[in-house]
Amino acid sequence: MNGAQALIRTLVQAGVDVCFMNPGTSEMHFVAALDDVPEMRGVLALFEGVATGAADGYARIADKPASVLLHLGPGLGNGLANLHNARKGHVPVVNIVGDHATYHKPFDAQLESDIETVANNVSSWIRTSSSTAEVATDAAESVAVAAGPPAQVATLILPADVSWTEGAEPAAAQPAATPAPVDADLVTELATILGGDEPAALFVGGRACRADALVAASRIANTTGAKLLAETFPTRLERGAGRVPVERLAYLAEFATMQLDGVAHLILVDAKSPVSFFAYPGKASDLVPEGCTVHTLAAADGDPLAALEALATAVGATAGSETVQEPVVPELASGPLTADAVCRTIGAMLPEGAIVSDEGNTSGLFAAGHTAGSPAHDWLCLTGGAIGQGLPVALGAAVAAPDRKVIALQADGAAMYTLQAWWTMARENLDVVTVIFNNSSYAVLNMELNRVGATAGGPKAKEMLDISRPDLDFVALATGMGVSATRATTAEEFAEQFAAAVAQRGPSVIEAVIPSIL
Amino acid sequence: MNGAQALIRTLVQAGVDVCFMNPGTSEMHFVAALDDVPEMRGVLALFEGVATGAADGYARIADKPASVLLHLGPGLGNGLANLHNARKGHVPVVNIVGDHATYHKPFDAQLESDIETVANNVSSWIRTSSSTAEVATDAAESVAVAAGPPAQVATLILPADVSWTEGAEPAAAQPAATPAPVDADLVTELATILGGDEPAALFVGGRACRADALVAASRIANTTGAKLLAETFPTRLERGAGRVPVERLAYLAEFATMQLDGVAHLILVDAKSPVSFFAYPGKASDLVPEGCTVHTLAAADGDPLAALEALATAVGATAGSETVQEPVVPELASGPLTADAVCRTIGAMLPEGAIVSDEGNTSGLFAAGHTAGSPAHDWLCLTGGAIGQGLPVALGAAVAAPDRKVIALQADGAAMYTLQAWWTMARENLDVVTVIFNNSSYAVLNMELNRVGATAGGPKAKEMLDISRPDLDFVALATGMGVSATRATTAEEFAEQFAAAVAQRGPSVIEAVIPSIL
Repeated sequence: MNGAQALIRTLVQAGVDVCFMNPGTSEMHFVAALDDVPEMRGVLALFEGVATGAADGYARIADKPASVLLHLGPGLGNGLANLHNARKGHVPVVNIVGDHATYHKPFDAQLESDIETVANNVSSWIRTSSSTAEVATDAAESVAVAAGPPAQVATLILPADVSWTEGAEPAAAQPAATPAPVDADLVTELATILGGDEPAALFVGGRACRADALVAASRIANTTGAKLLAETFPTRLERGAGRVPVERLAYLAEFATMQLDGVAHLILVDAKSPVSFFAYPGKASDLVPEGCTVHTLAAADGDPLAALEALATAVGATAGSETVQEPVVPELASGPLTADAVCRTIGAMLPEGAIVSDEGNTSGLFAAGHTAGSPAHDWLCLTGGAIGQGLPVALGAAVAAPDRKVIALQADGAAMYTLQAWWTMARENLDVVTVIFNNSSYAVLNMELNRVGATAGGPKAKEMLDISRPDLDFVALATGMGVSATRATTAEEFAEQFAAAVAQRGPSVIEAVIPSIL
Repeated sequence: MNGAQALIRTLVQAGVDVCFMNPGTSEMHFVAALDDVPEMRGVLALFEGVATGAADGYARIADKPASVLLHLGPGLGNGLANLHNARKGHVPVVNIVGDHATYHKPFDAQLESDIETVANNVSSWIRTSSSTAEVATDAAESVAVAAGPPAQVATLILPADVSWTEGAEPAAAQPAATPAPVDADLVTELATILGGDEPAALFVGGRACRADALVAASRIANTTGAKLLAETFPTRLERGAGRVPVERLAYLAEFATMQLDGVAHLILVDAKSPVSFFAYPGKASDLVPEGCTVHTLAAADGDPLAALEALATAVGATAGSETVQEPVVPELASGPLTADAVCRTIGAMLPEGAIVSDEGNTSGLFAAGHTAGSPAHDWLCLTGGAIGQGLPVALGAAVAAPDRKVIALQADGAAMYTLQAWWTMARENLDVVTVIFNNSSYAVLNMELNRVGATAGGPKAKEMLDISRPDLDFVALATGMGVSATRATTAEEFAEQFAAAVAQRGPSVIEAVIPSIL
């Protein structure tokens, strides 16, 4: 078999059986080899950022990596923003980038560029497969490295002649890395601290935002009086009725500072020490209160669940001492549509087991509150701040969980970076309801313009944040890519349309026309 | 004034008075400063690839750089493919990338990434402005470096606090680089070769594809019997009735080899020595015939016009000895629409002084032939092979030349990478007629799948090249972004719609539904 065939066979043997792709000439042998390995599912995207974001969403739900196939340096560039998000969220991705044939590279052909420099932005593991004999073992290693812990983006650069040359053999899956062991001394030390008088907080992120880990964290908090906080934009937060509720750190540093005020010990569990998203003149970048000690109970290479359970035992927390969210159904609004009314409706109608991909930005601010007591669901956030993630992540999550309803909460401006995701949703008949918050504005930037202290008065500056001229018609855009779409301007219309979208199977889009909340 | 104000003032003083932008929080002071420098025009794009491609198109027509404003590493990633195209086409771009405040970077905030590694893919000049005192001189240098020769992408990384800190002063424009001088000895040597018996060819690219340089090249060819060939995808080819016609080297290596067959001396004028776009099993990468000597009369850092004129004098070419294209009006087709019928219509109706942005790919194959004798016009090609350039380049060209009609010949698959360009065309009321060749296929890949020798038979492979499921509705997509659009399925419909589009001012889209030519 040729290199491409051995590569795909190796991926499948290692459990990677989906490839989100936007291939070109140098990847044609990979594409041809799809027919030789029936277990591999190829999912075509019309833009690379859709493919990389879909791989991210897939892995968050499947708990294993998907692969991505991109075309040379420019294709990697187009996919980079969502690989950045995956990197920041510690999401595993096997990122395969096709390259010219090894002997063709010195000729500096039209599409020649330095792929590794670009990959360095998102990957700590980059391997250029230099021979057909090695490509399968390189692929097996890429899967193991991507899966972690720590989970990460592993980039495999695949020259065309390595793909097309005969003589390759599939390689066996490589064993997963062993998590860093729980530090028993630290657990003892933290148990003592938590038993003392100084205010402490558990700060959970990553794998520690899953339901089982949150149970342990809640028991610790309830037993010791420590505060329980989650990172601002968790990779996958398991929440809703019957699960442990957790407050997230606010996006705005002003509010985050209030949440952390007085904390003397901050215990990180698969979370980074909190910092401000951006710098603002005269404001601190580091959100850790002065004099507060930061402890790392588990990092991304560790086992946060085991660490939390060990700490729960050490503090004498008992089963059943965790807080459990009661079911709550928000009251529906009426009259002209608002972001709040949209979020109330979603909270009232969210089906059991739903997956929410949240890139609602300013308009989505009310979503977390109104869905807190909805049936158990998963919440996927914008982990790296690079907008244009919401629709692709929803797409990938739907591929990973075909029996679950996926809801994409999507801000208008951010939707326009990767709107091509709708076409793939239609093609694969994925069960995704997209709610577009159309407030005709880069609303968050209107706020940030003031927060950074820029003199915000000028008409030219304001024009750069206004996307109402011309108005975007998301019904037309979605329809143009084969997804049925409706528009709602009142709370009643939205409720009717959302109920219908949830009741049917397959992709749909609802454009919610709302005023900006700012 | 603050750093951002001094930066923009410096750009304007250096002649850079347009900025295509997609800013974020870290660029808010730059945005605010637009109101302090009225001469700077800010043009908003909804996606970074639109901004970078527009800067490319602008510079090709304005013969000076525009600036681009991008948000951090992910924004640069999104803009990278079209910066790659600009780099390969030797097009000047002042590429400004906002970054976190200098003191914020060590905190590894959510959007932190290594911007310089990504910029290395497209820029040989990268400068991180480290202080407000230096930002203006850095900006002046970036403009001079971008302008060249050689023209290039200059990347200026702009930390937020460098923008917002007071105490900056604008800097004076820096002098342009002096072109490498014409090599008189080489001119003499080449004149001797051209006067001899061995077959020779002039291979022109870059600046040598402008009308004045082509006149000199044609005189040399006609005086000496040398062949005149242009590179496959010129940055800007000035052509049409009354100008010198020039044959372009074919995209397919098989045909290019025939064009170069027997050439013993290949004289490069602002062109790279020809190589195959991709490697194909068993086929040569280098297209230069065996035993042929390659001479570089002028490179990208030189003065191709002066070099050609010197050579014309040396071979004794006289004024008026050049070939001049006669006006030709192609016959219109009738019946079901085809790519050929579309191109005939465009050839028959192309207005004087039009600018054609050609990303028609396989469907555009007939366009060059049918427009060869149309009124004088400029032809802008996909210089770096990274698709998704056509619409942004058309946008930028229209900003540079508001009084000229711009025609974007756009393949369907390639259109989907940067379709957001239509929104900016509507917003700025730019005079661009987009013709979408909708053949529902990545047609070029169907061809390439066979050319690379991949076993093309499988249904899964073919599905990855088929974009008809679901069909894209480009009328809906364009309308959704505020551009009026029509659909043509017969030659008569297309002719009527194209005539109407050319007669009006402002953006319009015609979706030409055609069979694939392959």
